[in-house]
Amino acid sequence: MTKDLDDYVRQVCVEAKLASKGISTADHKAKDHALLAIAAKIRKSKNEILAANEKDLKAGANLEDALLDRLTLNPNRIESMASGVEEVAGMPDPVGEISNLSFRPSGIQVGRMRVPIGVVAVIYESRPNVTADVSALCIKSGNAVILKGGSEAIHSNTSILKCVRYGLEKHSLPRKAAQLVKKGREVTSALLKKEEYIDVLVPRGGKGLIEAVSKNASMPVIKHLDGVCHVFVDSSADLSKAYDVVVNSKTQRYGTCNTMETLLVSETIAETFCSTLFPRLIDMGVEIRGCPRAIQFDNRVKAASNADWYEEYLAPVLSVKIVDSLDEAIAHIEKYGSKHTDCIVTEDFSKARYFLKMVDSSSVMINTSTRFADGYEYGLGAEVGISTDKIHARGPVGLEGLTSQKWVVFGDGHVRT
Amino acid sequence: MTKDLDDYVRQVCVEAKLASKGISTADHKAKDHALLAIAAKIRKSKNEILAANEKDLKAGANLEDALLDRLTLNPNRIESMASGVEEVAGMPDPVGEISNLSFRPSGIQVGRMRVPIGVVAVIYESRPNVTADVSALCIKSGNAVILKGGSEAIHSNTSILKCVRYGLEKHSLPRKAAQLVKKGREVTSALLKKEEYIDVLVPRGGKGLIEAVSKNASMPVIKHLDGVCHVFVDSSADLSKAYDVVVNSKTQRYGTCNTMETLLVSETIAETFCSTLFPRLIDMGVEIRGCPRAIQFDNRVKAASNADWYEEYLAPVLSVKIVDSLDEAIAHIEKYGSKHTDCIVTEDFSKARYFLKMVDSSSVMINTSTRFADGYEYGLGAEVGISTDKIHARGPVGLEGLTSQKWVVFGDGHVRT
Repeated sequence: MTKDLDDYVRQVCVEAKLASKGISTADHKAKDHALLAIAAKIRKSKNEILAANEKDLKAGANLEDALLDRLTLNPNRIESMASGVEEVAGMPDPVGEISNLSFRPSGIQVGRMRVPIGVVAVIYESRPNVTADVSALCIKSGNAVILKGGSEAIHSNTSILKCVRYGLEKHSLPRKAAQLVKKGREVTSALLKKEEYIDVLVPRGGKGLIEAVSKNASMPVIKHLDGVCHVFVDSSADLSKAYDVVVNSKTQRYGTCNTMETLLVSETIAETFCSTLFPRLIDMGVEIRGCPRAIQFDNRVKAASNADWYEEYLAPVLSVKIVDSLDEAIAHIEKYGSKHTDCIVTEDFSKARYFLKMVDSSSVMINTSTRFADGYEYGLGAEVGISTDKIHARGPVGLEGLTSQKWVVFGDGHVRT
Repeated sequence: MTKDLDDYVRQVCVEAKLASKGISTADHKAKDHALLAIAAKIRKSKNEILAANEKDLKAGANLEDALLDRLTLNPNRIESMASGVEEVAGMPDPVGEISNLSFRPSGIQVGRMRVPIGVVAVIYESRPNVTADVSALCIKSGNAVILKGGSEAIHSNTSILKCVRYGLEKHSLPRKAAQLVKKGREVTSALLKKEEYIDVLVPRGGKGLIEAVSKNASMPVIKHLDGVCHVFVDSSADLSKAYDVVVNSKTQRYGTCNTMETLLVSETIAETFCSTLFPRLIDMGVEIRGCPRAIQFDNRVKAASNADWYEEYLAPVLSVKIVDSLDEAIAHIEKYGSKHTDCIVTEDFSKARYFLKMVDSSSVMINTSTRFADGYEYGLGAEVGISTDKIHARGPVGLEGLTSQKWVVFGDGHVRT
């Protein structure tokens, strides 16, 4: 990395730190008005944003289809960006909220006040909507944000950031509260060592990127690695609910981290359930790879290898294992899962409660599609990312994950004896 | 580091991971009964613990006084260890607590369940009471703990761990839920790279140790660096409260991280306040180092250098600066402080509110001694450490800081559309 590049990144960081002061103590109204102005500006700039996106798409003609799809904007996607920003504006301001303020035997009153973290850096690929989503969440939570988007989306991101800046300036908030780093991949390495300025880093993208970033970053990282999600259909399941949940968890979208990758089925109901389910999934184009017992239910099912149980397909492929007990299902999830999202389908109260207690994943579900595991569905407005860590934030990270809590102590001249 | 040593540390880690399974899902009653048994055993083993401590004190005869003081146990300190463990037993169990369970427009019900983090490693020096405190907090919060105490306290720590093990075994909890690493300093380096097993690391001790650990650890670290704490006496302060708060913040104990190191005084009341305060502090043996305005109030006050404003004396020394405004006080705290604990003394509501908003420290206080900033005084029962980080836990870290929250989602066959 050249010295020039490092100087450029440092300059961005210094400005972010300065801007974080202003945005961290900004008035609630100013932040919400800025967000509404950003949303309106995004709508008004639709043609400009689409033209910028067109440039990115032309330049990226050689990219693979999935990447191109994520890169592509259209009027609908622009509208949902704008309404996403509005939704964040409508949420309660987390900053300054004091909780659990209570008296201690000494007479002091102790509580906790929610405060911004400071400077958040997000490293992401393709999706230009992240520029709007993340800026909105950071502004609302009083953080300055450094956005490091992929070079393939540079024109789209730049035109969206213009709208963000417009809103910030219109309501006298620091315009450098949202910055887009405009140079290539090498700036990522420079960002990773700026722990003096960046309080938390959120990498979003492929596993390779996330692993490299986590390994080399000198500041705390909120990260998400794999999404090997399971649905376990218990012997006490209502099978019609089980069909719905399983089909939706697998097929509603194939490429997302909360898509089911492995289905576990209780031996008791395996034949009834699988002989209806398998043809239905195969008809939808899903390839099924089964354990020795599962392959008996349909001759189109292929044999799963041991590697299949670890695999995050992100594709119309599903591995299926028949298990003898709830404990075997839980043990499988623990061994092969990624602690992302796992679901039990059952009508048995005690088994549901046991599954909830024993499965250590960022989302544990009962009778519900794994596809619900995201910030929007959980009521966070949007998400900065999904964390499979246990420290600080777990699961979808929204406004709360972008804040910290300081202790506040009130007294009347109280002293410690 | 030898391979043998690394193998030994790995073995400890593997056993901790195994034990964490058992302790994480242990029954609430079993954990509390084990804690009560530990407390009783500590009381009963008083003579044995004192004899072990005597061995450490003899071996450490060359240690400096402060270290020896922290190492020394006596019947009172043993009693307060036991009652500390009992207090933790009496606290509500954080594990399994579900909060904010609410319906979303889609019909699913989403909430968050508090869960243990897994394996916690604590690296500490001297104080043998940490062995009891940290074990109690970890058992209660369902975590396995690896204790790396200083070699100077090895006999004391071993005899206390015996009591912990006794309680665990008596109530059929995994005895390896608390382990003491018995070898020298080199094991610390081995521990720092066991991110596969250790979920969070808490270093406690000198700044050098903490910096080295944070820099080299490959897992998340909860840490506390400096405690440069301030009290600002505002022009609207009730001066009799101000005397009490200032004297207590400085003199109640000199060597603790929540001791005031710098006093800021509003120019308006500086002469009145300082000419009474300074003789009183000097009589108590406190050396005062003042800014050019402060030295005028007593000829025994020395001139402070710029380095003084950064200094954590941990001694009967106080730096004093006269400031012209609330904003100057806040700017001083921001520039020279360590974001640990800072207090304003004032009767002015708006200034108090402004200070609370603008000062970004782990504890922000109004009219209260900074010495209150600890886990026991805040109602956490005890503390694993004090965090000056903003990620995960901030300020005193107790049971809640040793847990994480997973999302729980309930439905009735709900699918995403």
